[in-house]
Amino acid sequence: MDLEVSPLAPERFPDMPAVAGVRVAVAESGLKYKGRPDLLLAEFAPGTAVAAVLTQSTAPGAPVQWCREHLGAGTARGLVVNAGNANVFTGAKGRVAVEAMTGAAAMALGCKPAEVMIASTGVIGEPLPHEKITLEIGRLPARFGLNDWERAAKAISTTDTFTKGAHITAEIGGVTVNIVGIAKGSGMIAPDMATMLAFVFTDAKFDAAVLQPMLKRNADTTFNSITVDGDTSTSDTLMLFATGQAGAHPAPRDHRDPLLRGFEKALHSVLKDLAIQVARDGEGAQKLIQVDVRGAASKRAARRIGLAIANSPLVKTAVAGEDANWGRVVMAVGKSGEKADRDRMSVAFGGIEIARDGARVEGYDEAPVTAHMQGREVLIETDVGVGRGKATVWTCDLTHGYININADYRS
Amino acid sequence: MDLEVSPLAPERFPDMPAVAGVRVAVAESGLKYKGRPDLLLAEFAPGTAVAAVLTQSTAPGAPVQWCREHLGAGTARGLVVNAGNANVFTGAKGRVAVEAMTGAAAMALGCKPAEVMIASTGVIGEPLPHEKITLEIGRLPARFGLNDWERAAKAISTTDTFTKGAHITAEIGGVTVNIVGIAKGSGMIAPDMATMLAFVFTDAKFDAAVLQPMLKRNADTTFNSITVDGDTSTSDTLMLFATGQAGAHPAPRDHRDPLLRGFEKALHSVLKDLAIQVARDGEGAQKLIQVDVRGAASKRAARRIGLAIANSPLVKTAVAGEDANWGRVVMAVGKSGEKADRDRMSVAFGGIEIARDGARVEGYDEAPVTAHMQGREVLIETDVGVGRGKATVWTCDLTHGYININADYRS
Repeated sequence: MDLEVSPLAPERFPDMPAVAGVRVAVAESGLKYKGRPDLLLAEFAPGTAVAAVLTQSTAPGAPVQWCREHLGAGTARGLVVNAGNANVFTGAKGRVAVEAMTGAAAMALGCKPAEVMIASTGVIGEPLPHEKITLEIGRLPARFGLNDWERAAKAISTTDTFTKGAHITAEIGGVTVNIVGIAKGSGMIAPDMATMLAFVFTDAKFDAAVLQPMLKRNADTTFNSITVDGDTSTSDTLMLFATGQAGAHPAPRDHRDPLLRGFEKALHSVLKDLAIQVARDGEGAQKLIQVDVRGAASKRAARRIGLAIANSPLVKTAVAGEDANWGRVVMAVGKSGEKADRDRMSVAFGGIEIARDGARVEGYDEAPVTAHMQGREVLIETDVGVGRGKATVWTCDLTHGYININADYRS
Repeated sequence: MDLEVSPLAPERFPDMPAVAGVRVAVAESGLKYKGRPDLLLAEFAPGTAVAAVLTQSTAPGAPVQWCREHLGAGTARGLVVNAGNANVFTGAKGRVAVEAMTGAAAMALGCKPAEVMIASTGVIGEPLPHEKITLEIGRLPARFGLNDWERAAKAISTTDTFTKGAHITAEIGGVTVNIVGIAKGSGMIAPDMATMLAFVFTDAKFDAAVLQPMLKRNADTTFNSITVDGDTSTSDTLMLFATGQAGAHPAPRDHRDPLLRGFEKALHSVLKDLAIQVARDGEGAQKLIQVDVRGAASKRAARRIGLAIANSPLVKTAVAGEDANWGRVVMAVGKSGEKADRDRMSVAFGGIEIARDGARVEGYDEAPVTAHMQGREVLIETDVGVGRGKATVWTCDLTHGYININADYRS
């Protein structure tokens, strides 16, 4: 199925620099797709630290299990990713495929298999014919040096209608470091994991002990705050690699060191940029929806309320229909299971207050709200009136396109 | 919007007898709909016991709040229900409308307002112009005696494409009693409540202390085991009224008395029949889906896994597309948060085993499974391999019809 590019796509893929200590190359294995890259190999300089946030699914894929086993060391020398087959629910064969792929990558990169991270995306339940992939892996080191991030992003995509990248620089103790990220995803997107798949590379130098908690807390407010359909993938993977090749900067004492303030802000911005791009490419998306929740019992409660709104098919279809149906927002707050004071609750669309203190405002005029609903970006705000917790969540509308894609596509 | 009758609708509304001690009448208040009844008044004989399961929403409607306050007495003399306006999120005005409506019903029936139960369904957030309704309520007692259950079911409906009723008889200590129920619902249907709205009437004689726990446990396996879109209504109401007019039967000692076995089985069958009718009328439904879960850690875990499958937009669109995409069932089990052993998990569609022990069966032939998917009723079975908990959940597919209805209709 040929999919039209999302109307919410950025104008073009950003210019992204090389990251010292990272080399990438792609190939066309032909496993499922024709005429496009579907295999990515990345090489990291010795001493590269790695952190990851992986799916919370109780039926994770074989690649996720491999990464869990080997992340403990906190370092990585390589990454291999294929698109077209997720290698999930493939039993003992799945493990064999992972060992073959990481083994081939280790041989190509001159490292141990345990130092190679792996991710796969595509159909679930079909054995992965790994011979096609291992053959190509051996040829990839010859192509290092081009560092074409756009083709790297393409190689990890499935039903994506555009490639997703983000880049920023930050300073650590006067030393400039790069952060570059790529991501894929447009369906089976739901929080409590990182979305399938995002890889972020930096030339800053950190231990995994610093990297892991920093990645986790920033994933919570970015990738774990988007949703397309509430369906959590079996393969969700967000990984951050830090090569330490930027030039000598002071070492942080721990992951809360004020020295990291600028870097963490930059990291958050790259993760948020990529996460919103995934929401913009939600299957069938015609509108990007931002949900701001205030007045909740806690930050966590606010996020859960935001996700209840963002996952509600009734809210999402109302936005698709450009209908300012704020009653459905009230319904979604009510079903979230989190504390809310109905008689102090307020709702606004596009910055225009519609309901306050548990009832519609006097003299409510729907016209300006409807005008807002007709745009490409819709803002929904609610104050649930019980505390000071707040959170922002992003999603897209639910349209005929979602049905078309998912009733026809064997993903 | 004129909706086509669901292809899953029963052939016709069942013939349902009068229930001794219950009189019903309907009217056309014209609040929102034209040319159809939208107001129901029921009168119960003195001593009628009442039990209810109400929405768990933290933003419930004013009618739900009224019922919560007055159910404690365990008896009821009347019930008033209107369609077209849910009287939810209407602040102090909502309470005024409830008091006006229950007050008018009490006057018409010659009882206290506290003895009148109430439910409303329709748009959220618009003040309910109760004058139209209270005027009609006064005229309704003159029409008691017709006891037209089909028009009663029509009067409580909104986007329903068919009216829903079910009837059965049971024996208690040799005395035959009647159970009659009506229900409405086709969107904003999700569990952990009773679905909006269902009313069941029997001429058996029980205290509320017997009725309430019996209703609750049977709601769990019927109304709380269906879902259309995972969106919990602010007004969900399931009520059971027992008039005690059937003729003298022995009194049960408590709600677990073996004397009740036949009655409880009959009650369960009426609730299940109504609940499945609601799933059959799910907005846009083209197929009824039954999900059977086995091997879960507990009954509760099995139900949660079943609901994760039944609420998954990816599973529901796959069924709409007649695609035996069993990998999405694995995904949904994985995201349920309940224990599952990936390597002992099995999946079957239409009774045909597709995956066993965590991988696709050898020599899997998709043809007979695809034939099953082309029918109107789809059976999905999974054994998650950790315990003995089992549950059954019902839902419908997710189609273009759902988008059409909800992007256009202000419900």
